[in-house]
Amino acid sequence: MNQLPKCGANYVPLTPLTFLKRASSVYANRTSIIFESTRFTWSQTYQRCRRLASSLLSLNIHKNDVVSVLAPNVPAMYEMHFAVPMAGAVLNTLNARLDAKNVATLLRHSEAKVFFVDYQYVPVALEALRLLMDESQQNQALLPLAIVIDDIDSPTGVRLGELEYEQLIQMGDPKFVPDEIQDEWDPISLNYTSGTTSEPKGVVYSHRGAYLSTLSLILGWEMGVEPVYLWSLPMFHCNGWTFTWESPHAVGRTVTHMCCAPIIFNILIEAKPHERGEISSPVQVLTGGAPPPASLLEKMESLGFHVTHAYGLTEATGPALVCEWQAKWNNLPPDSQARLKARQGISILTLADVDVKNIETMESVPHDGKTMGEIVLRGSSIMKGYLKDPEATSKAFKKGWFITGDVGVMHADGYLEIKDRSKDVIISGGENISSVELESVLYRHPRVLEAAVVAMPHPRWGESPCAFLAVKENECGGKDDVTEADIITYCRKNLPHFMVPKKVEFVPKLPKTSTGKIQKFQLRALAKTFQITETKSTEVNNDVPQQHYDQILALSRL
Amino acid sequence: MNQLPKCGANYVPLTPLTFLKRASSVYANRTSIIFESTRFTWSQTYQRCRRLASSLLSLNIHKNDVVSVLAPNVPAMYEMHFAVPMAGAVLNTLNARLDAKNVATLLRHSEAKVFFVDYQYVPVALEALRLLMDESQQNQALLPLAIVIDDIDSPTGVRLGELEYEQLIQMGDPKFVPDEIQDEWDPISLNYTSGTTSEPKGVVYSHRGAYLSTLSLILGWEMGVEPVYLWSLPMFHCNGWTFTWESPHAVGRTVTHMCCAPIIFNILIEAKPHERGEISSPVQVLTGGAPPPASLLEKMESLGFHVTHAYGLTEATGPALVCEWQAKWNNLPPDSQARLKARQGISILTLADVDVKNIETMESVPHDGKTMGEIVLRGSSIMKGYLKDPEATSKAFKKGWFITGDVGVMHADGYLEIKDRSKDVIISGGENISSVELESVLYRHPRVLEAAVVAMPHPRWGESPCAFLAVKENECGGKDDVTEADIITYCRKNLPHFMVPKKVEFVPKLPKTSTGKIQKFQLRALAKTFQITETKSTEVNNDVPQQHYDQILALSRL
Repeated sequence: MNQLPKCGANYVPLTPLTFLKRASSVYANRTSIIFESTRFTWSQTYQRCRRLASSLLSLNIHKNDVVSVLAPNVPAMYEMHFAVPMAGAVLNTLNARLDAKNVATLLRHSEAKVFFVDYQYVPVALEALRLLMDESQQNQALLPLAIVIDDIDSPTGVRLGELEYEQLIQMGDPKFVPDEIQDEWDPISLNYTSGTTSEPKGVVYSHRGAYLSTLSLILGWEMGVEPVYLWSLPMFHCNGWTFTWESPHAVGRTVTHMCCAPIIFNILIEAKPHERGEISSPVQVLTGGAPPPASLLEKMESLGFHVTHAYGLTEATGPALVCEWQAKWNNLPPDSQARLKARQGISILTLADVDVKNIETMESVPHDGKTMGEIVLRGSSIMKGYLKDPEATSKAFKKGWFITGDVGVMHADGYLEIKDRSKDVIISGGENISSVELESVLYRHPRVLEAAVVAMPHPRWGESPCAFLAVKENECGGKDDVTEADIITYCRKNLPHFMVPKKVEFVPKLPKTSTGKIQKFQLRALAKTFQITETKSTEVNNDVPQQHYDQILALSRL
Repeated sequence: MNQLPKCGANYVPLTPLTFLKRASSVYANRTSIIFESTRFTWSQTYQRCRRLASSLLSLNIHKNDVVSVLAPNVPAMYEMHFAVPMAGAVLNTLNARLDAKNVATLLRHSEAKVFFVDYQYVPVALEALRLLMDESQQNQALLPLAIVIDDIDSPTGVRLGELEYEQLIQMGDPKFVPDEIQDEWDPISLNYTSGTTSEPKGVVYSHRGAYLSTLSLILGWEMGVEPVYLWSLPMFHCNGWTFTWESPHAVGRTVTHMCCAPIIFNILIEAKPHERGEISSPVQVLTGGAPPPASLLEKMESLGFHVTHAYGLTEATGPALVCEWQAKWNNLPPDSQARLKARQGISILTLADVDVKNIETMESVPHDGKTMGEIVLRGSSIMKGYLKDPEATSKAFKKGWFITGDVGVMHADGYLEIKDRSKDVIISGGENISSVELESVLYRHPRVLEAAVVAMPHPRWGESPCAFLAVKENECGGKDDVTEADIITYCRKNLPHFMVPKKVEFVPKLPKTSTGKIQKFQLRALAKTFQITETKSTEVNNDVPQQHYDQILALSRL
């Protein structure tokens, strides 16, 4: 039976481009995009993408060339997710909050041939191009062709060279038929990891991976066939968790689905009643980027949002785990529900496998909800690898698994819970402390608005936890009535003593990346400057169990 | 970027076997199967499958060997959908209504190495094995190893040789880890087409095709994560439309989803009120096999069933088109809704393309809802081909398309409507008549229970339509008050005259296959025996438009 051959009818390379073609055929007159006063149907979106693809080809774009984009969530950003791969090229969406130096670094690393720039980012782009020019010793041939995306509703006339996005659409052939993808392993996009801690790495996705990841998300989130999706997540972030390729999705109207980092919850919860719209039917929210504290989840649900918690990484084409809700949990009290929901959950359907392993032996940890190990993944939606970085690529893959660098436990019910990003584990007196666990307790304090815990050098324990807090105003608009002693007393009541922060620092707000991740590396740098006097030995017995204390004493005697 | 290599972490062959492994891990203690007094959890089902796979290997089953099964929808039938491919073998489920001669033919054609037989079918199986014995000149080595599946609740002791199914499970290694699939193009199952008209053909599915088809169904039918599926569709029929591989599905309890041929609707509609259970929340029904008449759909909805209409073929791994509901149709009157729903619809999400083409030129027909053409499909869930039948295989694939043999039109909204199975088109006086269209009018007659229209030889028109009807009883329990003249008068009121049946034959019930398809070949044979006197020439002008009459006269003069 293996002799039966593949042919064009029974073996078609998997690519999310088929979703747009299908939408244009079966939802031709249904709304695809609403952006300010611009509206398109699926048939128009498909035609605009085909026009743009033909224009890109006429600009001498070749197979696997990189097309970079610096833009917010405008229609052009959405369209390029289809048009660029239709031309055989690779889409590289840049984080819109990067500075000129970073933009220049990524343009150089990706060897972008074309550089689309939203009119609002022209100053940054100009500066980045100037930096590139200097580096290439004024050899303009090494620069990408810059093209402005002007405001689609009220064109400003701002330009960066001769060409403009809408002009390319107009010039393009409306009857252009893109070549079919020959190999589903071909690259479709290039995403640089946010680089909060180290040099950015260029993560390459395949058509196959993007296709499967998109299917999983629709399935796992029960999106149905006529959702209305609000683009609250930046499209440059893992290609908007692949929702960019999930074609029949209107934008605007009465929102049914949205994605965001948990930090957005605070904005919604802290909003004054008159600032909030009325939510008549539940809005589905997919969240990730950081484990949402149970208390935040609970408050969101009470406002009418139905939160699904996902966990992923750029390298996994966005979400890899989803905390799938089980009907039997419906009768639990709200705080238990919120705690269950704060777990990262189970693998998305198209991921072949997920596990928590001892990274040395590569053996699975027991399903006891306690033993920590490295979270590892495998499946066809894992990245192809890092661009031009064989060392990082081979480090990321070990014995057929992708090593996430995050630490978690596996519960008895098969649900995984992240305990920390590897680099966020605080090792105090030889004992791992999960900063996430500590943060989730801090978030339950009635006056805490934002919390982040990092490792702080400690003369006796090596490291100890240091908490950074932004607090809410009291009824008189003040904040100073919450003291370090209050928080430490609260923590002692709610945590094992060895986990209690040794220092609490109040800040107006926490430093964050454009995607809402707290920039812990900044806090860690700050924590290093703090002077901690040695803990009195009488306190030690309260801080750690006797066995750990003995171990540490033994070590200190070596 | 194409240099980035595939490895075990980022390229995992697609196979539905991963669904069961995932279910056993994340839904370990959730019910997988309820069958009479037997209940299993997903963890048990996974373990039973692994045990059976290891037993099959110890019986010397090799890669790509065929394992045939003759059984109704018992737990063993479900388990073998995973256990057989886990052992590297190919599952061949046989239609449980076949006679011994047909069973022998298929065992010989598939060269089955093992033959599982439900205890209820031992007499047929014995007879089939005897026929095989005779053919192979008593060479027992050429016979498959026969194994009985005894009643799991109350074992009968019936045997067909030494081995029994539960015994193989018990003997199997509970810690057996199946080899991973090396190539997703490897065969997973072999399904013979029902053979109502010609020699059965062995349709081979790949792991990749089964995987994608399964994903599409869950997506298109909005099954969500905790459906309760009633096994009303035989699993031997296209592997139960691939629902066999859709793992977290309990069977029993309060049913939320079921699949069936439209013929089952009649049973539900004709049931006396006391025979019907109360339907408290809507039951999702996926139907196919024949275009359901609008009137039937309407009645089903009023009983509390939410019907989704699908169209498919064995060669397309089950459903290929689904009549996806559009919210804007919600406000239409029920009969308009039912007519929209009776269309076959749009392609399932993982199918690359569907079209209606002129089979000679392979050009697409206009989207006018009128121009008929051949329905063609392409995508990775189309069969690998027909086993040991290169001629039929190459005939089925044309210029990168799979030719369904069915005739349809494409509507302006991108929804496809089937007009006839190619062989069911009635060509009368050079004009195509769709028997389906005629049947749907007949079904709207208040006394018609079942209707089938076939071509009948006609001295002037070549063919003309002949209707076979089963009618409902009147209030006094009689049927004879409906006459041929009544029906013809009714048709003349509701159809173009040339489409009105020339003969109406009343039957107690229509002949059907075990899967509920009306066996038109039997009716066609019957229709050939009918004597039709030539239509009077005065009638001709009423029957066909003048231009057709002129054409025919011109032809008759050649």
